[in-house]
Amino acid sequence: MDKKEKKNKAKRQSAKAGLAPGTPIFIGERKQEKTRIDVIDYDENTLHEFSDTTLEKGADLAQTGTVTWINVNGIHDLGMIESVGKRFNLHSLTLEDLVNTDQRPKAEMFPSYLFIVLKIISYNETTNAADVEHVSLILGENYVISFLENEGDVFDTVRERLRSAKGRIRSMKSDSLAYALMDAVVDQYFLAVERIGDFIENIDDRLLTDPRPDDLQEIHRLKRDILSLRKAVWPLREEVGAIEKSESPLIRQETRVFLRDLYDHTIQVIDMVETFRDLLGGMHDTYLSSISNRMNEIMKVLTIIATIFIPLTFIVGVYGMNFEHMPELKWTWGYYLVWLIMFSVGCGMVVYFKRKKWI
Amino acid sequence: MDKKEKKNKAKRQSAKAGLAPGTPIFIGERKQEKTRIDVIDYDENTLHEFSDTTLEKGADLAQTGTVTWINVNGIHDLGMIESVGKRFNLHSLTLEDLVNTDQRPKAEMFPSYLFIVLKIISYNETTNAADVEHVSLILGENYVISFLENEGDVFDTVRERLRSAKGRIRSMKSDSLAYALMDAVVDQYFLAVERIGDFIENIDDRLLTDPRPDDLQEIHRLKRDILSLRKAVWPLREEVGAIEKSESPLIRQETRVFLRDLYDHTIQVIDMVETFRDLLGGMHDTYLSSISNRMNEIMKVLTIIATIFIPLTFIVGVYGMNFEHMPELKWTWGYYLVWLIMFSVGCGMVVYFKRKKWI
Amino acid sequence: MDKKEKKNKAKRQSAKAGLAPGTPIFIGERKQEKTRIDVIDYDENTLHEFSDTTLEKGADLAQTGTVTWINVNGIHDLGMIESVGKRFNLHSLTLEDLVNTDQRPKAEMFPSYLFIVLKIISYNETTNAADVEHVSLILGENYVISFLENEGDVFDTVRERLRSAKGRIRSMKSDSLAYALMDAVVDQYFLAVERIGDFIENIDDRLLTDPRPDDLQEIHRLKRDILSLRKAVWPLREEVGAIEKSESPLIRQETRVFLRDLYDHTIQVIDMVETFRDLLGGMHDTYLSSISNRMNEIMKVLTIIATIFIPLTFIVGVYGMNFEHMPELKWTWGYYLVWLIMFSVGCGMVVYFKRKKWI
Amino acid sequence: MDKKEKKNKAKRQSAKAGLAPGTPIFIGERKQEKTRIDVIDYDENTLHEFSDTTLEKGADLAQTGTVTWINVNGIHDLGMIESVGKRFNLHSLTLEDLVNTDQRPKAEMFPSYLFIVLKIISYNETTNAADVEHVSLILGENYVISFLENEGDVFDTVRERLRSAKGRIRSMKSDSLAYALMDAVVDQYFLAVERIGDFIENIDDRLLTDPRPDDLQEIHRLKRDILSLRKAVWPLREEVGAIEKSESPLIRQETRVFLRDLYDHTIQVIDMVETFRDLLGGMHDTYLSSISNRMNEIMKVLTIIATIFIPLTFIVGVYGMNFEHMPELKWTWGYYLVWLIMFSVGCGMVVYFKRKKWI
Amino acid sequence: MDKKEKKNKAKRQSAKAGLAPGTPIFIGERKQEKTRIDVIDYDENTLHEFSDTTLEKGADLAQTGTVTWINVNGIHDLGMIESVGKRFNLHSLTLEDLVNTDQRPKAEMFPSYLFIVLKIISYNETTNAADVEHVSLILGENYVISFLENEGDVFDTVRERLRSAKGRIRSMKSDSLAYALMDAVVDQYFLAVERIGDFIENIDDRLLTDPRPDDLQEIHRLKRDILSLRKAVWPLREEVGAIEKSESPLIRQETRVFLRDLYDHTIQVIDMVETFRDLLGGMHDTYLSSISNRMNEIMKVLTIIATIFIPLTFIVGVYGMNFEHMPELKWTWGYYLVWLIMFSVGCGMVVYFKRKKWI
Repeated sequence: MDKKEKKNKAKRQSAKAGLAPGTPIFIGERKQEKTRIDVIDYDENTLHEFSDTTLEKGADLAQTGTVTWINVNGIHDLGMIESVGKRFNLHSLTLEDLVNTDQRPKAEMFPSYLFIVLKIISYNETTNAADVEHVSLILGENYVISFLENEGDVFDTVRERLRSAKGRIRSMKSDSLAYALMDAVVDQYFLAVERIGDFIENIDDRLLTDPRPDDLQEIHRLKRDILSLRKAVWPLREEVGAIEKSESPLIRQETRVFLRDLYDHTIQVIDMVETFRDLLGGMHDTYLSSISNRMNEIMKVLTIIATIFIPLTFIVGVYGMNFEHMPELKWTWGYYLVWLIMFSVGCGMVVYFKRKKWI
Repeated sequence: MDKKEKKNKAKRQSAKAGLAPGTPIFIGERKQEKTRIDVIDYDENTLHEFSDTTLEKGADLAQTGTVTWINVNGIHDLGMIESVGKRFNLHSLTLEDLVNTDQRPKAEMFPSYLFIVLKIISYNETTNAADVEHVSLILGENYVISFLENEGDVFDTVRERLRSAKGRIRSMKSDSLAYALMDAVVDQYFLAVERIGDFIENIDDRLLTDPRPDDLQEIHRLKRDILSLRKAVWPLREEVGAIEKSESPLIRQETRVFLRDLYDHTIQVIDMVETFRDLLGGMHDTYLSSISNRMNEIMKVLTIIATIFIPLTFIVGVYGMNFEHMPELKWTWGYYLVWLIMFSVGCGMVVYFKRKKWI
Repeated sequence: MDKKEKKNKAKRQSAKAGLAPGTPIFIGERKQEKTRIDVIDYDENTLHEFSDTTLEKGADLAQTGTVTWINVNGIHDLGMIESVGKRFNLHSLTLEDLVNTDQRPKAEMFPSYLFIVLKIISYNETTNAADVEHVSLILGENYVISFLENEGDVFDTVRERLRSAKGRIRSMKSDSLAYALMDAVVDQYFLAVERIGDFIENIDDRLLTDPRPDDLQEIHRLKRDILSLRKAVWPLREEVGAIEKSESPLIRQETRVFLRDLYDHTIQVIDMVETFRDLLGGMHDTYLSSISNRMNEIMKVLTIIATIFIPLTFIVGVYGMNFEHMPELKWTWGYYLVWLIMFSVGCGMVVYFKRKKWI
Repeated sequence: MDKKEKKNKAKRQSAKAGLAPGTPIFIGERKQEKTRIDVIDYDENTLHEFSDTTLEKGADLAQTGTVTWINVNGIHDLGMIESVGKRFNLHSLTLEDLVNTDQRPKAEMFPSYLFIVLKIISYNETTNAADVEHVSLILGENYVISFLENEGDVFDTVRERLRSAKGRIRSMKSDSLAYALMDAVVDQYFLAVERIGDFIENIDDRLLTDPRPDDLQEIHRLKRDILSLRKAVWPLREEVGAIEKSESPLIRQETRVFLRDLYDHTIQVIDMVETFRDLLGGMHDTYLSSISNRMNEIMKVLTIIATIFIPLTFIVGVYGMNFEHMPELKWTWGYYLVWLIMFSVGCGMVVYFKRKKWI
Repeated sequence: MDKKEKKNKAKRQSAKAGLAPGTPIFIGERKQEKTRIDVIDYDENTLHEFSDTTLEKGADLAQTGTVTWINVNGIHDLGMIESVGKRFNLHSLTLEDLVNTDQRPKAEMFPSYLFIVLKIISYNETTNAADVEHVSLILGENYVISFLENEGDVFDTVRERLRSAKGRIRSMKSDSLAYALMDAVVDQYFLAVERIGDFIENIDDRLLTDPRPDDLQEIHRLKRDILSLRKAVWPLREEVGAIEKSESPLIRQETRVFLRDLYDHTIQVIDMVETFRDLLGGMHDTYLSSISNRMNEIMKVLTIIATIFIPLTFIVGVYGMNFEHMPELKWTWGYYLVWLIMFSVGCGMVVYFKRKKWI
């Protein structure tokens, strides 16, 4: 999450102060103009797709025995959100959390549905930072409703698998669909982790040999991205564990083993994130050591030059004095003697430095 | 909390040494002159407001079946506090905690009432620091008593909602009212967090390019504010969790789901606070790196200037000597030769520095 | 605890090696000459005080139905300790711990009594350090025995309250008396915390503007005091919690709510101690930053002076050379030209530094 | 794990995004050309070995009452993996984890088998870094299937013991075999730990006397190796504990005591790893202190030389001035007086430095 | 533990790779030539001592109703260890752990005996480092077998108390004897802690006033000793707790209260160790601050000398120039004027430094 955005969010979050709890207020950035609803209705044998349809259509299909997936793109239209709430009998707090993009990942069991909040992390190529998107899932008896901040491609693979009837997915109930959607979100994390890994590798390679002030900025940026990832993934772990262990009748036994697998993947992401965090901490130290090494080298050169020439300059200064009675000045070999002395002093210094291993 | 105030508080806290436990002693700063009592009495259909009324009035209304909210502004009048204790049959330790502004947030279940301690964090524009105010709630069968250190506006939104009969609030019992008051307190935290976020952003933007000694002071000030916030919010989390899970008959089932939501908000504040803490820690490091980068640049310039001119100064010193027999001095082109030598030495140095990437 | 003392204690502790466990060995410093026993015997209506009396007297009174408080000042007289053990049927390990001033705070339930170890922290004005004193309580059916290392005033307030029959204390049983004594000890902690708070404030105020090497020593001293406090208070928290939750019939139900209050106070002390610890850690960093800031400023001045004058000194050196053929020396305006050149170089340097924001 | 490799793995891991969960995808490096299956079938009296045989052979033998150990070298042949899955009725998620070389160590109980994931750590002599290999075990009623990334010698000792009928191993069931294989893997860790210990010792010996920039790089490399080891060993601990405490009928009572022993070994490795980690952290600090000590020594020499000669150079400069009226220049002993003064100043400086303990 | 030794141990530990688990392999240093067995057999009335006797003698006595203590000095004779195992029916893993000097402290309950592993820490005066010795105890119905790496004096005090029939010890069963031996080991820790405390005090006293490079080495050595102690004591705490809470019939109720006391002592050692660790961490920081303070002082002197004399040297350089037209050179008071100017510049500098509080 970029800094500016975070501030704005907090601003909007505080704008809720004074409102009755359970009042849905959209506090994110409006990422697209129109809310768009897509519905897929399927069972083992048939599959119907309705693009850009109405909520009514989805709600009617959800009543039938087939599995209905209602995908809502855009959550800034509070009227729409409230009619979803009314049609599917959702708790007012669920509606509030649906549109509160600051809500951290969590799973909440209600008598008739399961409410799941997730975060999609994607790498924004233009701002060069990790983008966080708020996703919610409502898992009911025969339906799943997914809410996205804007039309994205994260669920395309699930859609594709449904269409091609590949895998187990078509023969399964709504809980499997919800699992597939969660799995798609977690798979996205690997992409973000990869990008961060690439950046880390790029910097790390030259950090010891050629540190630049920009690297520090880059390291700080990566630390923030890691922070965003951690905030998305750590609560997810508990969340998936809670769904797996929940006694909700909406989650069938055969789905639980897949949820355990998802739990494993979440831990894998956490492991990578923590490893990168360790590496970044180490890189910060390496950068500082590296900078200080260079500084030390520079100081060493200064010291060597100065300590060799300062005494020599003193010597030549002595024979630049204008005293009338300076016998050395009259010696025929005085000048050459001075050179000899200076040469000896200089060599002595160099030998001393060599012995001290400074050069 | 400002430093001076903390010290004073500790002083007063120690003043309690030797007194019987359960003796209420006001240890805060007397923030206003007179204790003022406001009462709101309502049920689904009616609402009566009594401003600046007596305790008796409130106590009488609390006996009726309607919900009575007694708001006590000012807790330094121990006589008043003790009569509240007598009328509502409060435990002596409750009275002690009511006026002990050092008491950390907690919830305590007594047979006939629930005692809740909270902290309001508000941003003081004049001292530029987070102010902490001690708030207590007594939740009884049909009444809620709230104690504030001084007349503030934190509960105005609840009052407004009660008056306008907006939301669920009017149709609900005293536990919902207590929840609404707690929610109002937590909503305040977002404002404080925002302010801190703003300050962080201001400093962070220029830290890498133009670090100033003041920034360090500012960072330390923000760290202290974060400390205050943490001390208010961390125990709150346990507290709200404990109320939600408590088996007290005063908390009805339908209120618990709202308390869980409040719990979520508390965690959200904690998340933000911890994020800011991480950022501030990082900013401290950035500041130090930044300062040390500038220092290094300065030292580099010194080194380059000194290592170029020290040998040259030695050379000109040599020919400033007054020996009678210095053949070079008589050479026609001696002077120009010296310039040539010096020019070569200087250029050699510059080339060396370029190769070392120092310039 | 002062360093010297700690070492001595460890020495004496190791002196116990090889003795049968349960052999009481006094390992502290003998803080007073004679062991002195004071007894207070009371019930709701009567109170009898016996100053400097015998153990027998106290033991006889303990057999009656009234509450008997036997206060033993001085624990170095092992004969006395052993007769207490015999008369009150104490376990040999209890006797060992009674006189082992290294024993950390703990509560141990024995069938016929409860054994409580505490530490009094007081601020020693002469050594300017926190003093730790070992206190033990034996809570029996109708009696409390308190053991102090030397005659102190920590229990005076309890004595006073008993005499003046103020508060609940007289109408209550031995468990309330034990609670009152523990409460008096915890109240003392606030005084020590205050003192440390004062010192912290004193240093902190001038740390950024005028850091002194002494401050570092002071910060280290305070860190050690905080360490002593932590060692006394952290185990106390568990201890009070354990007594409160224990199923010992010696602790009555009405006392437990007071113990919970004591538990709260302990946490409050811990909170303050941890806050001070954080502040001290921050102050150490501030001190270092501050010192390094000053150093940087000094280096900057050196650099500016040196980089301005080193080139100028070179120039004047050039025209101090004694070559016979140096045409500039004969120019009428040569001298003034050199001044002009030097002035330009100097100004150029200053402008460069200004642009770099070094001055 | 080496940096390059990690990046590649993450790449491949993300390549799984969009596939149905439970689809086995090999994401490691193909370490050998052909998958090779070796089977050992034994009971107390007989032992048959089949090198480079077919899966069918192994599956047939697994049906008999004897213990069958099927060792699969190479996991990149997904067709082979899938036929193993079909023959032994493995869950699709097990197959996915079998070939997912990023899967962290874990144990999973399925109704008919126990699935164990391990990591072999071996020290690669050419890259001078710790290599991580993915190993999986399937423990069934009468068989154990082990999957290795490539043909290694880690299980040679188990094979040898089986052949020579040494130890308890031949008389025992499949769970003992699985234990023996796990034990062989853990024994390998000691070798890796040793290598790291050797490197640490090498560097540590000269770090205080002769620090080199390379040492920092070496320390960082070792830190990464320790990171790899930790990632392999920490989950292993939980894993072995879980198997020991599991109620799976596949694990007999007599095996559990051996598993507890294995658990102890794992903790021993962890202890060593953590000790090395502490040492490495300390070595990093020592390196920095050491470098800074040398720098300080260098700076001290510069300061001493400069502060002695700068005033002397000034003095000789004074008498190099060409004023017409400089009485000292005409004094007969002026020159010698100046030498005397300079000698005194120099000696004064040296005395001052001695007193300050700088030399 | 000294570094060299650690490495050697790891080497030998890895030598076990490939052996059947439960194969006893001695991996320590052979500390003495011959294994020596001493037996003490006693009950309340009689005591028989057999020095340098055979295992058979001890095993026979262990069958009788009296308590038999078999002390085995030296554990490198695997034949002997195996015959002990056979005679007393010990598990093969117990034998392995008996001679595995890397085994960390633990307690393991077997049906017929309790197996306890401890570490003796003693301060080696010659190497100036903490020595670690591996000790095991077998507690059976009527016997205790203790295994030491070499003949030491740690159990002498127990032997003495048995002989002199002092204390409770003679009237008690084998569990009390085992407790007495463990207590003797823990008492040893206080001696090691003391030694470390002495070293810490020695260094700490002069660290702020006179830091030496050796001190850093000493601090690192002490940190390692503390590490050894921690590794011995931390697992011991769990271990003693586990024995105390175990339901083994070998531990009688009256012994448990003594074990709780031992547990307290262990915590006391841990407390001291952790305090010393904190102090050492602080001392490292103090050392660095102290070194950097001295450096700063040195740099300050350099800066002051240089910034005063560099401008003065420039001035005298100016009048050392040989221009023909330099009017000042002809002024009668020119020379004195220059001195005046230089004096003013010098004083100005000094005043500036005073104002900046640099001198």
